[in-house]
Amino acid sequence: MTAGCNGGAHIAFPDLMGFGRHRMEIAASDLQDYCLYQIGAVQAFVRAAGATLAHVKPHGALYVMASSQEEVAAATAAALARIDQKLPLFLSNDKCSAAVGESGITVAVEGFPDIVYTAAGSIIIEPQKVAWDPDLVARRALRMVTEQRVSSTDPAVDVPLSVSTLCIHGDAPNAVQIAMRTRQVLEAAGVRIASLNS
Amino acid sequence: MTAGCNGGAHIAFPDLMGFGRHRMEIAASDLQDYCLYQIGAVQAFVRAAGATLAHVKPHGALYVMASSQEEVAAATAAALARIDQKLPLFLSNDKCSAAVGESGITVAVEGFPDIVYTAAGSIIIEPQKVAWDPDLVARRALRMVTEQRVSSTDPAVDVPLSVSTLCIHGDAPNAVQIAMRTRQVLEAAGVRIASLNS
Amino acid sequence: MTAGCNGGAHIAFPDLMGFGRHRMEIAASDLQDYCLYQIGAVQAFVRAAGATLAHVKPHGALYVMASSQEEVAAATAAALARIDQKLPLFLSNDKCSAAVGESGITVAVEGFPDIVYTAAGSIIIEPQKVAWDPDLVARRALRMVTEQRVSSTDPAVDVPLSVSTLCIHGDAPNAVQIAMRTRQVLEAAGVRIASLNS
Amino acid sequence: MTAGCNGGAHIAFPDLMGFGRHRMEIAASDLQDYCLYQIGAVQAFVRAAGATLAHVKPHGALYVMASSQEEVAAATAAALARIDQKLPLFLSNDKCSAAVGESGITVAVEGFPDIVYTAAGSIIIEPQKVAWDPDLVARRALRMVTEQRVSSTDPAVDVPLSVSTLCIHGDAPNAVQIAMRTRQVLEAAGVRIASLNS
Repeated sequence: MTAGCNGGAHIAFPDLMGFGRHRMEIAASDLQDYCLYQIGAVQAFVRAAGATLAHVKPHGALYVMASSQEEVAAATAAALARIDQKLPLFLSNDKCSAAVGESGITVAVEGFPDIVYTAAGSIIIEPQKVAWDPDLVARRALRMVTEQRVSSTDPAVDVPLSVSTLCIHGDAPNAVQIAMRTRQVLEAAGVRIASLNS
Repeated sequence: MTAGCNGGAHIAFPDLMGFGRHRMEIAASDLQDYCLYQIGAVQAFVRAAGATLAHVKPHGALYVMASSQEEVAAATAAALARIDQKLPLFLSNDKCSAAVGESGITVAVEGFPDIVYTAAGSIIIEPQKVAWDPDLVARRALRMVTEQRVSSTDPAVDVPLSVSTLCIHGDAPNAVQIAMRTRQVLEAAGVRIASLNS
Repeated sequence: MTAGCNGGAHIAFPDLMGFGRHRMEIAASDLQDYCLYQIGAVQAFVRAAGATLAHVKPHGALYVMASSQEEVAAATAAALARIDQKLPLFLSNDKCSAAVGESGITVAVEGFPDIVYTAAGSIIIEPQKVAWDPDLVARRALRMVTEQRVSSTDPAVDVPLSVSTLCIHGDAPNAVQIAMRTRQVLEAAGVRIASLNS
Repeated sequence: MTAGCNGGAHIAFPDLMGFGRHRMEIAASDLQDYCLYQIGAVQAFVRAAGATLAHVKPHGALYVMASSQEEVAAATAAALARIDQKLPLFLSNDKCSAAVGESGITVAVEGFPDIVYTAAGSIIIEPQKVAWDPDLVARRALRMVTEQRVSSTDPAVDVPLSVSTLCIHGDAPNAVQIAMRTRQVLEAAGVRIASLNS
């Protein structure tokens, strides 16, 4: 890998037909095994590429459930701990930080400047309804980082959010432009962009 | 197939790692497609064997959810209706009969004389805790058929149950003996055993 | 389905990671079961759409192997026969017609006017190297139908080919235009386009 | 893990329906990826259990093909090398040692005292035809180790075999007894049993 990038494992439920987007109820020990399997596999590729596995981010329904259900978060975190206790677990809020912390793992709250939040702080994963406006995404990102808050579907409600990493979705047609504009706006405001483990 | 047997399709969630025992939340239209796919595939084998597909019985978590959640039952039934409206849908009670009936499908309530019921009428799928006593299973089967009730984990509570088919699990080491004894006891009491579609 | 279309089952090896393009060595009875499963599943959807399953066309490596290896062709055909003996089996040549005929199934030789043939008559499945020129494809199609031959990678060699159906690949960016131009050229030459089973 | 055991990764073709026993033709770079994925996943579990991944042994058709086809052996070995160049690759003979060595990986020839060899040195994987006689297996094991040869299906032909590890299949009903008897006979003859990497 180049340009100082590291790798992350984007792990999911064993739900091939639903691309990991179906919620599943899985016993904690099984879920831990499924996560361990995937992290181990991805770690092998990251190492083979000369980089270091630097974070784990659940995908789809696992992400939503680990961000809101303590048992799911705990089982996922337990898998990270068996690989490397320094791996941060990306979640959309800090609700399950205590459950995650029992394995010695730290939650890195992730902000989604390109996705709409409900007033309750949930992200609405319907990318097609999001305005892929680079300036808008960049402004939302800047507010997340400097004010620790983001607007919601309720104009009267801002969601408090203490983010340590931002996600720009790669499936927007102008994703690279969005990311570049966001970086530009953040750096112009004096925000330093760095690896989580630096 | 021999001896007057017909075939049934035992359909499940697309959950290979959990053998269909993980609950999944699947949109109705997708679930209908998953069911249709499996029923069609099994029907081809049943026909190739010279028999007729005569019923559909969900497996594992799909069985439990279709027996208790109307949306799941309705989506499953809609798949049966697209194959053959005369296919009965086996469920563990009649709670979702109305939802199933919207597709023109009929629920056949299935009794489990070899499994324990809670006082609320749920089956407890832990085969290892069930007494594989042929006489006990046969007596429970007879009571289901002639009295439309079965004992529960609460000695004071009988579960009312209007069964039209019985399930003897094949994974008991003495499953054949249990089935033979059950048939013997039922017939001795004058119960006629027949195909659902006869 | 509309416009007089019928459905076909595009069956493949159980090779999800290779999209069915990895050659596999599978015992005849297992391969027959895999094919039967897929045809039955697809037939259920075709019927649910109000249409009729009218042909079976193997995909990827199964297509190549069934078109050249008699055992593979025979196992595939045996599955069709267990569904409906009138289902034609699409293959790229008639080399295995006798093996297929043992199940009472008929081979429908398929022409690929948008794909390059070797002098030995094999198709070269590298779509990116094919000229997606509607006029060129249409001319090749017309020659296949009216002269029963197609040019090959060896300018000196024409491949004899008695086609009863043509395949226009849908993954060309201008696939619809190619298909329309091909139909236009065929009809202008007096060729009647009809369903195989009409 | 206990008793000084280490772990090995038993990697296979992505052939779930055939339990890895179907031969598959897979491009070298894809095969290397499939192997890397599986080794990485297993390594995570071995480490989580406090042990060390100490060898890689292909399963089923991959084992047979890697033991006889240089391209397959080379692709498999390349995956090991990306994990750890000290991992030995278990194969049934040394035919592909040179191809394996190009990645810096060493072949550990594995002897099968409980399986029949052809005169050409191939193993015949039909466990049900093998005599599960502990004394017979132990004698064959001893001869492999001390004489570097094993009898074949042709009474006139012994297969030369320079083994550095032995496989006792765990699916024999008396597998533990066979393994214990084999160890006993080997040790009685003065053979030292040790970890490959010790």
